[in-house]
Amino acid sequence: MENIIYGKNAITEALISGKREINKILISKNIHSDTKINKIKELAKEKGIIFQFVAKEKFLPYEEFNHQGIIAQVSPIHYMDLDDFLDTKGDGYRSLVILDGVEDSHNLGAIIRTCVCAGVDGIIIPSRRNVQVNATVEKTSAGAINHIPIIKVNSLVNAVQKLKNSDWWVVATDASAKDNYYDVRYDDMNFAIIMGAEHAGVSKSLLKLSDFIVKIPMLKDFNSLNVSNALSAIIFETVRQKLTNKK
Amino acid sequence: MENIIYGKNAITEALISGKREINKILISKNIHSDTKINKIKELAKEKGIIFQFVAKEKFLPYEEFNHQGIIAQVSPIHYMDLDDFLDTKGDGYRSLVILDGVEDSHNLGAIIRTCVCAGVDGIIIPSRRNVQVNATVEKTSAGAINHIPIIKVNSLVNAVQKLKNSDWWVVATDASAKDNYYDVRYDDMNFAIIMGAEHAGVSKSLLKLSDFIVKIPMLKDFNSLNVSNALSAIIFETVRQKLTNKK
Repeated sequence: MENIIYGKNAITEALISGKREINKILISKNIHSDTKINKIKELAKEKGIIFQFVAKEKFLPYEEFNHQGIIAQVSPIHYMDLDDFLDTKGDGYRSLVILDGVEDSHNLGAIIRTCVCAGVDGIIIPSRRNVQVNATVEKTSAGAINHIPIIKVNSLVNAVQKLKNSDWWVVATDASAKDNYYDVRYDDMNFAIIMGAEHAGVSKSLLKLSDFIVKIPMLKDFNSLNVSNALSAIIFETVRQKLTNKK
Repeated sequence: MENIIYGKNAITEALISGKREINKILISKNIHSDTKINKIKELAKEKGIIFQFVAKEKFLPYEEFNHQGIIAQVSPIHYMDLDDFLDTKGDGYRSLVILDGVEDSHNLGAIIRTCVCAGVDGIIIPSRRNVQVNATVEKTSAGAINHIPIIKVNSLVNAVQKLKNSDWWVVATDASAKDNYYDVRYDDMNFAIIMGAEHAGVSKSLLKLSDFIVKIPMLKDFNSLNVSNALSAIIFETVRQKLTNKK
């Protein structure tokens, strides 16, 4: 199946960002136009993108998605190369999030949203043993996917090694760590935060390479934070430090 | 349909906590036993709860759920009364999360998990215009629902008024607030944090009653954090303050 984006907000965001090549937009004849649909038609016209009103049968192949009667056929997402990312230097320090074994599409979508809001500069995912960017991820990210590079690597170990050789500091999360995530000072270095799978955590080989291993302290004996919520706690602590300059 | 819990982890948690009355556990004859299923059988035996192996057709009414071939028929969740909550005083200060118009079951499940991990003492939801605790919420909460009281009220305005009259401080979140969430000191008061609907935000009538209105600062012009991730950022800042005693 070709790549698709579904959902009014995700399609609007893709049109506005201009970062995805959109081949065609299909709108079901059975849905009523509303301000969001009109906005999409207007943007498509502006950018010379075809939109077609089609019978609802055309949507049968996409039944599994909550598509609201509108989909866009798009070019595959462009993954960035880690070397290219490291070559493009920005102003000041940069940050990355590394995902080691996140399997749920909704979690990846939520993580992408959080990272964009918190100004993270890129997300690294491995080419195996991790969910890839699919239509559900794009939908759940609410368009955030167009605002942050996704870097796909064959080996996370090599990627972390490369970061360490390029003046980056690596922070891994582990429930049995001694230090808390807010004990690290994030505002004076390039940092990459590694989040692990919900049950297995971060791989031993990556923990060994990390400069810091931190945990999120739990106030109850119930250690089961959803991975996107765990990341949110940590990443907004880095924002707080950047904006207030205190640990 | 009677109340059900589905998913091996959710059922195990319910058995361990003992907080839900379980009438019967149904296991599909078509699934293979594994350590989790064996643990469930063992716990059920211990507690004198019937479990039955049934033909997969028995699961047809539950098709919409990702039930993994096992469901538990349970008594409805017991919502706590706000007055009862306020009457039971704990040691030290307490905290609440108030949800004003959260509509997604997965979000409510993730919020419950986050609140339990962060030691929040209760969650207030309104009886209308907000998702209620359903089977998907129980599943997504990964059993956390058994570790925190859910308080249902007819009017959030009355509830907030009552809190304010009982030595509680109310913090509402709003994207256009001047103060950041970490500008408030949470470790020396009883506090309730109000989270709004993803698009509409917290109702005006509640904003007006609140003692503090705070925002999460965004480092990119993309203001669209998922509500459970927004809450996680704030609630773990309150944990950080409690544990380090500094703003």
